[in-house]
Amino acid sequence: MIKKLLLTPGPIELTPAVRQSLVANSIGHLSPTFTTTFQNALNNTKRLFKTTNGQPIIISGSGTLGWDLFGSNVVNRNDSILLISTGFFSDSFASCLTGYGAKVDKLDAIPGHIVPLKTIQEKLQKNNYKAVVMTQVDTSTAVLNDVQGISQLVKEFSPNSFVVVDGVCSIGCEVFEFDNWNIDYCLTASQKAIGAPPGLSISMVSPRLLKYVMNERDTTDQVTSFYLSFKKWLPIMESCIQGKPSYFATPPVQLILSLDVALKELLDATPRGLDERIEKSSKTSDWFKQQLTKELGLKMIPQDPQYTAHGLTTIYVENPADLIKFLADNGVFIAGPMLKSIPPYARVGHMGVSAWDNDNNQHITRCYELLREYCTTKSKV
Amino acid sequence: MIKKLLLTPGPIELTPAVRQSLVANSIGHLSPTFTTTFQNALNNTKRLFKTTNGQPIIISGSGTLGWDLFGSNVVNRNDSILLISTGFFSDSFASCLTGYGAKVDKLDAIPGHIVPLKTIQEKLQKNNYKAVVMTQVDTSTAVLNDVQGISQLVKEFSPNSFVVVDGVCSIGCEVFEFDNWNIDYCLTASQKAIGAPPGLSISMVSPRLLKYVMNERDTTDQVTSFYLSFKKWLPIMESCIQGKPSYFATPPVQLILSLDVALKELLDATPRGLDERIEKSSKTSDWFKQQLTKELGLKMIPQDPQYTAHGLTTIYVENPADLIKFLADNGVFIAGPMLKSIPPYARVGHMGVSAWDNDNNQHITRCYELLREYCTTKSKV
Repeated sequence: MIKKLLLTPGPIELTPAVRQSLVANSIGHLSPTFTTTFQNALNNTKRLFKTTNGQPIIISGSGTLGWDLFGSNVVNRNDSILLISTGFFSDSFASCLTGYGAKVDKLDAIPGHIVPLKTIQEKLQKNNYKAVVMTQVDTSTAVLNDVQGISQLVKEFSPNSFVVVDGVCSIGCEVFEFDNWNIDYCLTASQKAIGAPPGLSISMVSPRLLKYVMNERDTTDQVTSFYLSFKKWLPIMESCIQGKPSYFATPPVQLILSLDVALKELLDATPRGLDERIEKSSKTSDWFKQQLTKELGLKMIPQDPQYTAHGLTTIYVENPADLIKFLADNGVFIAGPMLKSIPPYARVGHMGVSAWDNDNNQHITRCYELLREYCTTKSKV
Repeated sequence: MIKKLLLTPGPIELTPAVRQSLVANSIGHLSPTFTTTFQNALNNTKRLFKTTNGQPIIISGSGTLGWDLFGSNVVNRNDSILLISTGFFSDSFASCLTGYGAKVDKLDAIPGHIVPLKTIQEKLQKNNYKAVVMTQVDTSTAVLNDVQGISQLVKEFSPNSFVVVDGVCSIGCEVFEFDNWNIDYCLTASQKAIGAPPGLSISMVSPRLLKYVMNERDTTDQVTSFYLSFKKWLPIMESCIQGKPSYFATPPVQLILSLDVALKELLDATPRGLDERIEKSSKTSDWFKQQLTKELGLKMIPQDPQYTAHGLTTIYVENPADLIKFLADNGVFIAGPMLKSIPPYARVGHMGVSAWDNDNNQHITRCYELLREYCTTKSKV
């Protein structure tokens, strides 16, 4: 039987060790074993985000929940927020914040491009934003934003604005430095480049933003969520990071066990750890993209290699459903288009073990060969 | 090596089939395999709640998130809500609703008792509540509420009030009838009597409440959550229940697979299905409680057998930490007290396979024997 291969931009293929971690005997959420595992996972999440002072928050949820965590804990009615959109997910983040009463000033990139830094600078010079929000990689387009560049602009022209990053499709496969880049809030999820199953909302909060949420925010006459409250979760995360069990809401024990294993594979399984994993993944991505464009003559959505994601590839194709079916019939599962404003396209995910170990598992190679077969057959028709 | 046994009131021991389901190869959240599984799980969740018209909503989260789902989708500022408290979790549900601006009228039961129906009736006759909220089993006390009785009172004296039930520690191990009892909203979680790992928020919404949320609620000037929105989730759940893939936020694929297996074990593995599982579990509970009270002379928190939960047992003990340690040293993990207003106590969970198959696995028998050993030893000291 043909081995099935999940090459969507999340969820992704799991390593045998991650899969095996899920089948462990049930353990209590207040047991020493679980507390130690959660402690490891929290500390390793800090290493993953490259932060020493950031506060990790890991709870049951999806990537989407991370938007609400920011909205619910930070946004007051009529707060002005600059949101730099590079696709569907940036737009959805904007909708989410609007629900919390924010006045969202949305800068839309031309599909396939980033918003020019100069445009952002002008906005920052003219307005007073509580936060500047961006998506490092919008999974709908594969455009890679210049998070470092935008954050530098904020530091220079609007230093009081919080810098907020959706890192769902980037953390673990793109260069990201929470501390060095002065990020205040970054959210991600477990099922993309981290390489765990879906079901965990993973966020990092800067000391500056945490101080605002805990002490400075005026919540008079504001709706406050219970499950989403940093004030509820902070003592729990602080306690767990010190190795002491603590309870607010029951954590998803098995998923935390798998996160712990996935993070160790990402951070500690090779001599140079995360950097090495990211380099290997990028190399796979570069090779795949080059084959598709140079060998098969396909065109990608992102127009500039500097602003092209490494965790997925978006290619314009005449009939995405037909291509997806051909690959699925051959055991390889990729994803369809999300934006309707541009010509039809397909999305191939190459995150986690499929990307950093393509030399051995040939996942991306196999996908390329099938794409080549498809293109060759179609061009003959 | 001694077999470890998790007998907390959630998470619980998983069956081998449920554990094995977690280790399946990664599948996409829009794949036909996943969609069919989710469809089964949604339909079986309706059978679990005994409803034909209820709308199930299953998302990443914990039991606690279910409180926020109600608060976020239903509660407007200054809404008046009657909350009948039988312990810590009822009180927390009240705090949650207060955060959404509700004026919560809280009726506190005397610990170990329910609130008399007459007291509730008086409240309903004097006031105009948007909702009447209760916990079927408060995990902090093991008091079993008279949900059917209270709901009948609401129907008679305040028919416009929504009837809301926290079923976290009851769905799957107590008699519960969503349709027959006229319940409007009931929330539960995956890790208790359902017998799946923690990480799923499972709710049921009546057509009447759904109509209110979708069409009638005035959300002008209200904060609206994104991830928690019934308006966002309803089309997804409706689509999945029809077997068509649909996307809002990535579902926790592995946990849904395990929920599907757990529900089948609960509903379809025996000739009389759920009723048989509940009866078997109750029989184990009755035997365990009788042994503890009659043989060991221990006293339980609930004072009336009619209002005593079947999924856990709470017993007053002089030194809970000492008892818990003795059991843990022997491989059996139980839980400590939660309420500080009453004498110290311990909590033993007996839900899922440990309860409905004690004849074979002897989980609860082993726990009882250790408790007997502990009591005998202590009384000799």
